[in-house]
Amino acid sequence: MRLRNVKNKEEILNNCNFLIVDPTIYKGHWHDLFKNNNPIYIEIGSGKGKFIYENALKYPNINFIGIEKFDSVLARLIERVEEELPNLYIIRMDAFNIDEVFSHEIDRIYLNFSDPWPKKRHALRRLTSPVFLNKYENLFKNEKNIYLRTDNQHLFEYSIESMSDYGYKLKDVSLDLHKIEDEERITTEYEDKFVSLNNRIYELKGYKD
Amino acid sequence: MRLRNVKNKEEILNNCNFLIVDPTIYKGHWHDLFKNNNPIYIEIGSGKGKFIYENALKYPNINFIGIEKFDSVLARLIERVEEELPNLYIIRMDAFNIDEVFSHEIDRIYLNFSDPWPKKRHALRRLTSPVFLNKYENLFKNEKNIYLRTDNQHLFEYSIESMSDYGYKLKDVSLDLHKIEDEERITTEYEDKFVSLNNRIYELKGYKD
Repeated sequence: MRLRNVKNKEEILNNCNFLIVDPTIYKGHWHDLFKNNNPIYIEIGSGKGKFIYENALKYPNINFIGIEKFDSVLARLIERVEEELPNLYIIRMDAFNIDEVFSHEIDRIYLNFSDPWPKKRHALRRLTSPVFLNKYENLFKNEKNIYLRTDNQHLFEYSIESMSDYGYKLKDVSLDLHKIEDEERITTEYEDKFVSLNNRIYELKGYKD
Repeated sequence: MRLRNVKNKEEILNNCNFLIVDPTIYKGHWHDLFKNNNPIYIEIGSGKGKFIYENALKYPNINFIGIEKFDSVLARLIERVEEELPNLYIIRMDAFNIDEVFSHEIDRIYLNFSDPWPKKRHALRRLTSPVFLNKYENLFKNEKNIYLRTDNQHLFEYSIESMSDYGYKLKDVSLDLHKIEDEERITTEYEDKFVSLNNRIYELKGYKD
């Protein structure tokens, strides 16, 4: 996600109670932070936060953690969160370090409009590459569960190949998600823009024992 | 495939040397019929035969078998075949009986523009349903290999789900096959029509040990 610089971003980040700057200290103990045993869903690349915040508002019995690496984006995300919620935390980090942050405790990963890394030589940087699928293995409590949504045709094709190769069963595959209206669907900012341009949105849900 | 009635179809079928009306007698012995041990690729639902005939012409070291159930369509297919080829046979039968016809001897199944059976209650009639994937299990000599091509979004979505659930790894997934021109690509009659209308063509290749 590219974004103009936010001038007072350091101040915004420093004053935020639900932003976790060193998440490694909670590895294996995230349920303690939430003070309950509800499922934990994480979103890797939360952008300006619409998706994760609206989910946290709508599903108080699910714990949500948004992950974002850019300070300017984090500042916008924090500004969006009008009220602190007991079931929402935000982590500042690069997804590459995710296996240092969680251990057998999460229930779902959301990958929304992830960077497609279109060049073949960058394929392993895609969040559904075997490098990342391998990192995700020990994050989950039980069944592995990845929800992927993107407007990028090639990232979607790649993800079908990579995830099926890794042993994921793919369900609820949609090659044109917004063709069917669904008032319950929570979207991202990016998604709303693309839908308004009449671009196709792709979605799948991967499951693995 | 719907087609007008061909009046002299019985005559055409009776005079055809490469049409096999009772294929069950070759079960387990198709390589004997071809008099070689080259790979055998079958197409379920060959329609008017462009795809299978052009493949047989282009790849003389592969044995091809086209399967079609409608006599009028078969008559058109037979008329298309300008010269008999040693590596091409046609079977008249319903795909549902395919497990009575082959046994551990084929190398690839092509499913081109198969009937999408759009109603949910007909889902098991789709050629990528678990009913058919189960039938295909004992057809293959070694690795299972299914090439699927369709213009039908919902059949493609369903096939990704069904095949990944059955343990197929999905490769060479394309959500817009003809966006990239490929002079080597052999198409079906149906496909040419849809491409000329600018409709998307979907393709995947499934592999299973």
